[in-house]
Amino acid sequence: MSNITVSLPQNSYEIAISSGSLSQLGAKMKQLKLGEKVLVVSNPEVFGYYGDTCLQSLEEVGFEIYQHLIPAGEVHKHLQSIEKIYDTALANHLERSSTLVALGGGVIGDMTGFAAATWLRGVNFVQVPTSLLAMVDASVGGKTGVNHPQGKNLIGAFYQPKLVSIDPDVLQTLPEREFRAGMAEVIKYGVIWDAELFSELEQAEHIDSFESIEPELLNTILARSCQAKADVVSQDEKEAGLRAILNYGHTIGHAIESLTDYQEYVHGEAVALGMIAAGEIAIQMGSWKEAAANRQNKLIAKAGLPTTVSAKVKVKDVLEAIKSDKKVKSGKVHFILPKKIGAVKITDKVSSDVVKESVLQLIGNS
Amino acid sequence: MSNITVSLPQNSYEIAISSGSLSQLGAKMKQLKLGEKVLVVSNPEVFGYYGDTCLQSLEEVGFEIYQHLIPAGEVHKHLQSIEKIYDTALANHLERSSTLVALGGGVIGDMTGFAAATWLRGVNFVQVPTSLLAMVDASVGGKTGVNHPQGKNLIGAFYQPKLVSIDPDVLQTLPEREFRAGMAEVIKYGVIWDAELFSELEQAEHIDSFESIEPELLNTILARSCQAKADVVSQDEKEAGLRAILNYGHTIGHAIESLTDYQEYVHGEAVALGMIAAGEIAIQMGSWKEAAANRQNKLIAKAGLPTTVSAKVKVKDVLEAIKSDKKVKSGKVHFILPKKIGAVKITDKVSSDVVKESVLQLIGNS
Repeated sequence: MSNITVSLPQNSYEIAISSGSLSQLGAKMKQLKLGEKVLVVSNPEVFGYYGDTCLQSLEEVGFEIYQHLIPAGEVHKHLQSIEKIYDTALANHLERSSTLVALGGGVIGDMTGFAAATWLRGVNFVQVPTSLLAMVDASVGGKTGVNHPQGKNLIGAFYQPKLVSIDPDVLQTLPEREFRAGMAEVIKYGVIWDAELFSELEQAEHIDSFESIEPELLNTILARSCQAKADVVSQDEKEAGLRAILNYGHTIGHAIESLTDYQEYVHGEAVALGMIAAGEIAIQMGSWKEAAANRQNKLIAKAGLPTTVSAKVKVKDVLEAIKSDKKVKSGKVHFILPKKIGAVKITDKVSSDVVKESVLQLIGNS
Repeated sequence: MSNITVSLPQNSYEIAISSGSLSQLGAKMKQLKLGEKVLVVSNPEVFGYYGDTCLQSLEEVGFEIYQHLIPAGEVHKHLQSIEKIYDTALANHLERSSTLVALGGGVIGDMTGFAAATWLRGVNFVQVPTSLLAMVDASVGGKTGVNHPQGKNLIGAFYQPKLVSIDPDVLQTLPEREFRAGMAEVIKYGVIWDAELFSELEQAEHIDSFESIEPELLNTILARSCQAKADVVSQDEKEAGLRAILNYGHTIGHAIESLTDYQEYVHGEAVALGMIAAGEIAIQMGSWKEAAANRQNKLIAKAGLPTTVSAKVKVKDVLEAIKSDKKVKSGKVHFILPKKIGAVKITDKVSSDVVKESVLQLIGNS
């Protein structure tokens, strides 16, 4: 059991990690005085597994509960899905003091958070992440939003939850591929922030599935990853500077996802590929040693993540796609480059040629 | 010329009131370092009057400028209009450091603010209100949003502008009816917060049109109203308590607007009616003297605002509509009731009978 506080100027909150905690969610929320009405937003699959436990724990302590299901998948992450949440909120007379609970992965969390941020100009919001990716990344830090037809997460808000409640047990029903994808973000924290976490992952026998990973290591992974994210977010809630380091691997990763129409790679896989490319850029820029990059790439492979990109992806398209990333500032693309395991720097001084070279290598490997 | 600071824990900003200031907007924004790209959002009528001056002032100081027009009127205040702003923002590659300028009344301000709050999870936002209502109320305090098909302002966010720039000269093209509607909110500040402002309005020869009002009084009205709003918002940004007093006259006012399909009364007129009803409730509850209520009602009449409601409005419908107000807490309707000119209290202890009686009186007068 671990409790981590995300300290912010306003709206600090707790990340509570504990095996079996889903059945205690209601009691926890009651302590936080989160109104009387609770709308649980989920997708049919997750809700099929965990809906009963969640609703029962809320009902036991006297919440008035409602539910809203959205079909699973990134393809439903758009404003029209948010409008349907609004309709349910309206039909059940939710009030400003009411709470939206996101029971699901990153897509459910992002959408529920955005609905909570914008219904009645803001109602309470609680994250109950059910994927590894959502546990270590999406559910912490207050980024909420939906996709625009022409780009991911272009519409959204910074809106902090009142609580992030993580029950590692729910990972038992997560598809293995999704588990591995989550592990990509865990490795990311190792590279950008926490060398000790990185070493623990290296020393572990298995990190590529819920079944094979040691429960204690899983708990460490969750706690240290959330702590890393909490540390960064506490220092830079609205991504004015430091927070950008969390995008390590994401610049090229996003480009690869987008160029393959989000069909070929899940997010974590694309980030893994992006980290490999960013590592290569760092080597070429002289900021990182090849040995360190090899350690990173080996760990990515150990987690069962891809290390080469489909030849369908063309280098010139990657370069083009990078330029339309929403984090572009004054037309300049910023890269997060490792200096050593556990530390990175932000730079806008990477030439197209170097990017090209590193992406070519990623394709060349395949 | 008056400068008022809205002091907030984060994101404090200035309200700059100055005759002729529209032509200085660009210079002012440049000082505040608001990025390189500026998207001006307006409606065709307002833009016809003031678009050139606004764009020129931005261009002079080197901003890269874009424009987006939305047809005038509350009927366009919905998510679909926001999506069109997103499309323009995307097409012109706006970045997080870019700025959206709202050049218009409350509808333009609310929508532009919501688009700014939610595009790329938040870009800079500047309010250039062109109606009296927007100057003294809507543009200050960070409430942004759009209507849901079933209710006003149900979708939105608290999002503070970086600057509110008020040029009283633009009121010369505001329709007289809109000027009067704005005056309803000014009278509201007198009743809830600023007895001296109330007295100045009583002593003035005319307060019912831009042509007849003394320019100096107009400046006082703008400054004192904005100061009142800034005082209240500084103490309670997210409407946890005190800020609710700004809704004086709005509970019954909203009900009347909604029951007449927003066709019969403009917002300020409905608020005027709501204040008369709230005053009557306060008398019946023994918290206010009839003489004070008479002063209020006389001032409302002096501003050329309605004091009786169309007989089309049925009392039972008003009671029903009040219950679905978004500010209802735990099913209880909260009323703001005057104690004396310049001070109000919040109560949820008003019986339906008393509300009924006061609304009946409003209709009976007609």
